[in-house]
Amino acid sequence: MYKKKIITAVTFLFITVLAFSQNEDSVMIKKISDEILLHGKAHSNLYTLCKSVGQRLSGSAGMYKGEAWGVQTLKDAGAINVYLQECMVPHWVRGKKEFAAFTKAKGSNQFNILSIGNAVGTGKTGVSAKVIEVKNFDDLNKRKDEVKGNIVFFNYPFNKTLLRGAYGDAVRYRSSGASAAAKYGAVAVIVRSVTAAYDDNPHTGALRYNDSFPKIPAVAISTKDADKLSNGLKGIYKFEKLFLRTNCLMLPDTIGHNVIGEIRGTEFPDEIITVGGHLDSWDAAEGASDDGTGMVQSIEILRAFNAAGYKPKRTIRIVLFANEENGLRGGNKYAEEAKVKKEKHIMAMESDGGAEYPRGFSCGMTKEQYAKVENWKKYFTPYDADKFSFSEGGGGGADIGPLQTNFKTAQFGLNTTGQRYFDLHHAATDVFENVNAQELNLGAVVMAAMVYLVDKYGL
Amino acid sequence: MYKKKIITAVTFLFITVLAFSQNEDSVMIKKISDEILLHGKAHSNLYTLCKSVGQRLSGSAGMYKGEAWGVQTLKDAGAINVYLQECMVPHWVRGKKEFAAFTKAKGSNQFNILSIGNAVGTGKTGVSAKVIEVKNFDDLNKRKDEVKGNIVFFNYPFNKTLLRGAYGDAVRYRSSGASAAAKYGAVAVIVRSVTAAYDDNPHTGALRYNDSFPKIPAVAISTKDADKLSNGLKGIYKFEKLFLRTNCLMLPDTIGHNVIGEIRGTEFPDEIITVGGHLDSWDAAEGASDDGTGMVQSIEILRAFNAAGYKPKRTIRIVLFANEENGLRGGNKYAEEAKVKKEKHIMAMESDGGAEYPRGFSCGMTKEQYAKVENWKKYFTPYDADKFSFSEGGGGGADIGPLQTNFKTAQFGLNTTGQRYFDLHHAATDVFENVNAQELNLGAVVMAAMVYLVDKYGL
Repeated sequence: MYKKKIITAVTFLFITVLAFSQNEDSVMIKKISDEILLHGKAHSNLYTLCKSVGQRLSGSAGMYKGEAWGVQTLKDAGAINVYLQECMVPHWVRGKKEFAAFTKAKGSNQFNILSIGNAVGTGKTGVSAKVIEVKNFDDLNKRKDEVKGNIVFFNYPFNKTLLRGAYGDAVRYRSSGASAAAKYGAVAVIVRSVTAAYDDNPHTGALRYNDSFPKIPAVAISTKDADKLSNGLKGIYKFEKLFLRTNCLMLPDTIGHNVIGEIRGTEFPDEIITVGGHLDSWDAAEGASDDGTGMVQSIEILRAFNAAGYKPKRTIRIVLFANEENGLRGGNKYAEEAKVKKEKHIMAMESDGGAEYPRGFSCGMTKEQYAKVENWKKYFTPYDADKFSFSEGGGGGADIGPLQTNFKTAQFGLNTTGQRYFDLHHAATDVFENVNAQELNLGAVVMAAMVYLVDKYGL
Repeated sequence: MYKKKIITAVTFLFITVLAFSQNEDSVMIKKISDEILLHGKAHSNLYTLCKSVGQRLSGSAGMYKGEAWGVQTLKDAGAINVYLQECMVPHWVRGKKEFAAFTKAKGSNQFNILSIGNAVGTGKTGVSAKVIEVKNFDDLNKRKDEVKGNIVFFNYPFNKTLLRGAYGDAVRYRSSGASAAAKYGAVAVIVRSVTAAYDDNPHTGALRYNDSFPKIPAVAISTKDADKLSNGLKGIYKFEKLFLRTNCLMLPDTIGHNVIGEIRGTEFPDEIITVGGHLDSWDAAEGASDDGTGMVQSIEILRAFNAAGYKPKRTIRIVLFANEENGLRGGNKYAEEAKVKKEKHIMAMESDGGAEYPRGFSCGMTKEQYAKVENWKKYFTPYDADKFSFSEGGGGGADIGPLQTNFKTAQFGLNTTGQRYFDLHHAATDVFENVNAQELNLGAVVMAAMVYLVDKYGL
């Protein structure tokens, strides 16, 4: 009886403490959330970034303006210890606007194209060649004998039935199509833009050459013009050559920076929680959703913690990573420096999928860590953002990936509904106007909630 | 042993049959889904509606053009038995553009306003009066002695922390603010637009007068101008009168129609499944999201069933309801006629919350029915649209509500992430360009899946 009483009392105490601390967490998360939803600065920070800085391609003047914006915005948000972490970045330049048209076409029968990032250019003289349209790599391999001296046109569509996988499925042609075609002697490649949008905007992005084969020019063509080209190849332009001129080139590496700002932890200042997005963007537009939104959401967490009076136990470090798009030099540098300094990184989070309605997180960590995280789902249900996916040792974002490799740091990637992102990704439509303020803020809310929980309870 | 064998065999058979039928359902749902995502007509139908018809306010020429569009679009989708169901609708007209400015203001110090639907106008002479700004109804009641002869300005903000409830919370001032102020002798009301957007667009919508009090003019003011007005009242215009002129008026009721098209059931043609959106819209824009999207999604179900070769057992009836916005005459008429004809309505579904990413359904039905529906969640998980909410005898949409009242027909309302809808609701921004094709199609997919399941298994 006596024993039972003690157990009952202890159980009661335990439940009370648990209920109290849960309640305390709900209250603090609500306070932070209200701060973001009612007084958030993410949207106005994004406006300044998009309209005063604009594109931020690695090595460009925009990158340096973006770094200055980052330093100032972090300071304004209340970060202490704001600093630049130097790293060398590739310096690819687009040059004069690209041109593509059938050589004997009448009128202004041009195609909307953009050089693919990291590609070599054709030079001023351009190339004139027949176009061989292929459906996919298998098709290319079957028709390898036709390729030599010609332009290969990868007309692989974005598969809208793959709700979360269409980009990964189609991007292979942009990233490795050039070398695949060069292997058979192609002189250039044209790639159907990797997007669900059906319009006149080409979508750029990076390629990676395979050093075993010649580097050939590579362009992305808008989805409408991919169909126009395909129809032309079946119709009156069947036997004609296409003239292609691109003026891009890779200059020597130049200096770039990760931009970093922190709040130091009150109890465990040496335990670091990294949260970030990437500073660089493609040059076709403002890099609003890729990845202005990830940066302003990350900075907003820090601002909201300060405004809500939450003093983190651990060090919250906001990182605006350099060069995600065509080199990942910032993410690699950050992890290298962390290794050199023997820092302790307990968690890293990235937002790099645009600011649509948040759905939850991709969790790359140990099973034990995920068991803890899963137990926090209840805090995300009110926001309808409680879909967590787990992958043991998996990733949460390109920039934070090297931390996983070096330290096994637990990874969180913000997931969103994600159906609009690839409509504007790497294209002229990636502008401030295509970001919704409330969705942007809700992303910041759920990121802040997760950072709060990991900060408070560890991982 | 023998008995056990039989049980085992029966169990095995049962499981096999179940697995087979589940597999069959997954296959058919995938077939319908692929048809919609790859060959969908909802987006192009919406384009035609928005750009060739435009606004469709009850009684306007646009309404009649919209009805003709509905008939043609239903026929093109393969509906048989396409017909109009006549009902009388209110005929409110906005008249010449509204005007509001401080009487002694210098320059063009006007405010962006729209008359609230169903309101009386000021007439050509307008009204000039002091403006009394109130926070809410409580504030109005406290200050009732100041109201007589003046204009009441309800400056109640859209509460962004109420993720799903902000509209319901704020719309009270638009719908019943006029009579609440008239009770104390106000000569007109100005209502802060019910929207999360912070811009220059006023958002109209309906009001309902309380017949106990005089009918006074009522306008919605853009959120930016609500702040401008509020600041003016605290600043240099403190003691000034505002001049307000609105030219709207209510004409006698006129003839409108529900537009209806069906596929007849092969087994139970007398059991009716109603799916719809509303045909009318406000006059400020194109009524793209409110509720063009609901109409084209509903029509798409019928088209996709035909294209995928699914022959429904029950009758699928697509209804484009008249007059949801300022009278609900179409929904009422539809339920009345169903009563007169002694029709059997087993389910009704409405999409009237825009075409953002679908999250699931509001299910208004019996507990027994919901148990069945809940068991189908697994079919919606691949679309991340498996959040079902249940309310015994609750509603699924304004237009289908009368079916619940008359027949206890099970109600399904499509729910979406819903954070962008009220940015453009009833405002000039509710245009085709603000609808995403893939999100629109995904809404149609989950609607079609639920209709398929209820059709096949009953409810």
